[in-house]
Amino acid sequence: MSDPLSIDPTAQDILFREARTANTFTDEPVSDEQMRAIYDLVKWAPTAMNTQPLRVVLVRSPEARERLVAHMAEGNKAKTATAPLVAVLAADGDFHEHLPTVFPHRPGARDDLHGAPEARARMAAFNGAIQVGYFIIGVRAAGLAAGPMAGFDAEGVAKEFFPEGGHQVLAVVNIGKPGPDAWFPRNPRLEYDQVVTTV
Amino acid sequence: MSDPLSIDPTAQDILFREARTANTFTDEPVSDEQMRAIYDLVKWAPTAMNTQPLRVVLVRSPEARERLVAHMAEGNKAKTATAPLVAVLAADGDFHEHLPTVFPHRPGARDDLHGAPEARARMAAFNGAIQVGYFIIGVRAAGLAAGPMAGFDAEGVAKEFFPEGGHQVLAVVNIGKPGPDAWFPRNPRLEYDQVVTTV
Repeated sequence: MSDPLSIDPTAQDILFREARTANTFTDEPVSDEQMRAIYDLVKWAPTAMNTQPLRVVLVRSPEARERLVAHMAEGNKAKTATAPLVAVLAADGDFHEHLPTVFPHRPGARDDLHGAPEARARMAAFNGAIQVGYFIIGVRAAGLAAGPMAGFDAEGVAKEFFPEGGHQVLAVVNIGKPGPDAWFPRNPRLEYDQVVTTV
Repeated sequence: MSDPLSIDPTAQDILFREARTANTFTDEPVSDEQMRAIYDLVKWAPTAMNTQPLRVVLVRSPEARERLVAHMAEGNKAKTATAPLVAVLAADGDFHEHLPTVFPHRPGARDDLHGAPEARARMAAFNGAIQVGYFIIGVRAAGLAAGPMAGFDAEGVAKEFFPEGGHQVLAVVNIGKPGPDAWFPRNPRLEYDQVVTTV
């Protein structure tokens, strides 16, 4: 039977089938060049009204790493302290300031949203989360393992790394080459018929 | 310079660089076999606590299509009526019922979440949105174009297609081969330095 998928099996494996959430990493550094290549790939994936609310802080310095670890849940502190690179992913509620450039065919969009901070926060959270999905796929596309974590004090991390305000921290992601015993046994996925219905 | 990415350039193009949000489609049908292959690929991508809250309704029958179109924003009605296949993507707030199977190493998780419907709704919305990102990438991996839309009456669509309640409709996605004049001119993306900072 021919494969109904258009990307080759190696890419399928790298992105989905063999990629795993890593809990340990080697010492091999992750370069800015790699992070630029990841961004320049995933930036093309779509968001509603091209809002692109995702913002990324790459935590490189030991001092910044310490500030981040302080806000992580106990079970996430050690791996956040030792991963080659840690990215803080947040949604920028002031994404509308870019709309005149990134969504020029609705000229009033920025001003319409200016007075609607709650609608902006909802749009930022939703589209930012979609972009978290793209980002994780992008990290894998660079042959790296991602270790996304949800266990942290989101307000504390926001104050620490987005002191200007208006950002919701969505995820903290460890990035690097997987180390020894990097994975837990893989948890089962829901079956097609548990997820998809046809009407 | 060697490519910092590990997936081949063709896959990069299919998934990100050349893929576009389609506004018109050919008549070529999208098969259940294609949708199964897409699901069986993207199901492996990670969610927090393996929650997998995304649920998909494939709208195939003319009667169901009519019910969906009634809830779409004016500008989305025509393409929703004519796309080869339309998928309604929703987050299931009752994802916790599956946790004993999909997240067996925290046996109390289902019961802990049972009494916390607001926390569940937040987790479902966030992880469901990440899975919307994976789903769009998966449609593209099958050589198809996705046309994700946010303009619809989410409560109306939820009542229509998830009458049992507890679901948040996140997106409606047209799926098919791109037709004539399928794309608007591509909107600009934010630059790396507008999105990523290093500390």
